[in-house]
Amino acid sequence: MSGGGFIKTLVIVGHPQIEDSSTQQFLKKAADLSEVTWHPVNTFNVEVAKDQALIQQTDRLVLQFPLYWYSAPAVLKNWIDQVLTRHFAYPDAMGSLVGKELGIAVSLGSPARNFVAGAGENFSLSQIMIPFQALAHKLQMTYLPTFVIDQFGYQSDEMKAKLLINYQRYLTQPRLGHFDDQTDWLVNKLSELIATVPEDKKQQLTLILDQIKNDQSTLEDLQMNLKMIQDTEE
Amino acid sequence: MSGGGFIKTLVIVGHPQIEDSSTQQFLKKAADLSEVTWHPVNTFNVEVAKDQALIQQTDRLVLQFPLYWYSAPAVLKNWIDQVLTRHFAYPDAMGSLVGKELGIAVSLGSPARNFVAGAGENFSLSQIMIPFQALAHKLQMTYLPTFVIDQFGYQSDEMKAKLLINYQRYLTQPRLGHFDDQTDWLVNKLSELIATVPEDKKQQLTLILDQIKNDQSTLEDLQMNLKMIQDTEE
Repeated sequence: MSGGGFIKTLVIVGHPQIEDSSTQQFLKKAADLSEVTWHPVNTFNVEVAKDQALIQQTDRLVLQFPLYWYSAPAVLKNWIDQVLTRHFAYPDAMGSLVGKELGIAVSLGSPARNFVAGAGENFSLSQIMIPFQALAHKLQMTYLPTFVIDQFGYQSDEMKAKLLINYQRYLTQPRLGHFDDQTDWLVNKLSELIATVPEDKKQQLTLILDQIKNDQSTLEDLQMNLKMIQDTEE
Repeated sequence: MSGGGFIKTLVIVGHPQIEDSSTQQFLKKAADLSEVTWHPVNTFNVEVAKDQALIQQTDRLVLQFPLYWYSAPAVLKNWIDQVLTRHFAYPDAMGSLVGKELGIAVSLGSPARNFVAGAGENFSLSQIMIPFQALAHKLQMTYLPTFVIDQFGYQSDEMKAKLLINYQRYLTQPRLGHFDDQTDWLVNKLSELIATVPEDKKQQLTLILDQIKNDQSTLEDLQMNLKMIQDTEE
């Protein structure tokens, strides 16, 4: 089964008032998973050696922060400057980050739709995050698509429920962006959930799970047929 | 005379060890000009109201720093986050920065030629500075071309002499990027210099000054002739 792997993720949460942020408290609950380490950075005091050790044990490093003036808050920039020393972080260094993944989870106070040329912010988030992409390139890390938390305070309960699932997937799904892996991830999550719910709900959820599995195998059949047709034509 | 104006410039120098930086000490001497305020930011303690007042009195705000992980050092990011409050900085706010200029003076530890797609750093400085360009856009400031200090430690004396002139011009020349203004700026500087040097050097410098003025008027004649030809053809 593809995507059945297991990755360890370190979330560096850079926010000067983490406890007062409803966004960060929501995400903290969502990130309460066995494979995720939640690491708040809300002061300028950094335990460099300890945090370097955390990074070394990690497959996916996620820098999470509210966008302050189109960049990370100073507490997070300070952490980056302190922890990612040349000796530790460069590809030829001992603690090399080569091959690890770098994700950015950014929360916005201004609507995400404004981040486009000609709209209010005039630049895309991909452009604004280039310093992080350059960092990933320098350290030979795999740069992940940015995870956007769009004006959390204005989100409906339904949007927040979707946000929770997508965020958990961002933190824990191996090979982000692969559709098969996304389905596998959901099937796994649902199977785990079924084991914990009361009997009456179990049946309902099992039906949903069977439907997803069925859809997935139909899709795989379609893909196989398509491949056979292509092979015949060549 | 064009470009004969006078602008007030505030240089915010963000560097955790300004005194130990030979680059910053060199630039500090170069910036010792009547129209320039040199403002070091090397701690996380910010006098917000005082610095906001400094900005209000300024025509050109220059953020100066060594590039740390493709961005400003944490001390400078902290200054930005603290000083540019919504109430102070937004275009509809009291302390509006609308119409002021924003310049970036960045010193590089890695050669400037590496900042291009496909080379070592893979991204241009224009891309890496987009967060500052977005800031200028938001505040309706005029964004100036970035001033680059390319590996100061490796520069020859001649390169440093050129750097000094170009840096002074970056801080004080009205309408950066206009050729006429550049010449006017040089003529003014040279005239000031001639007044201070011994008699024997005065003559030599006056000849150079006359030559520059002569070149400038020749250029202006050429431009006028070109315009007349264009007007005739229309």
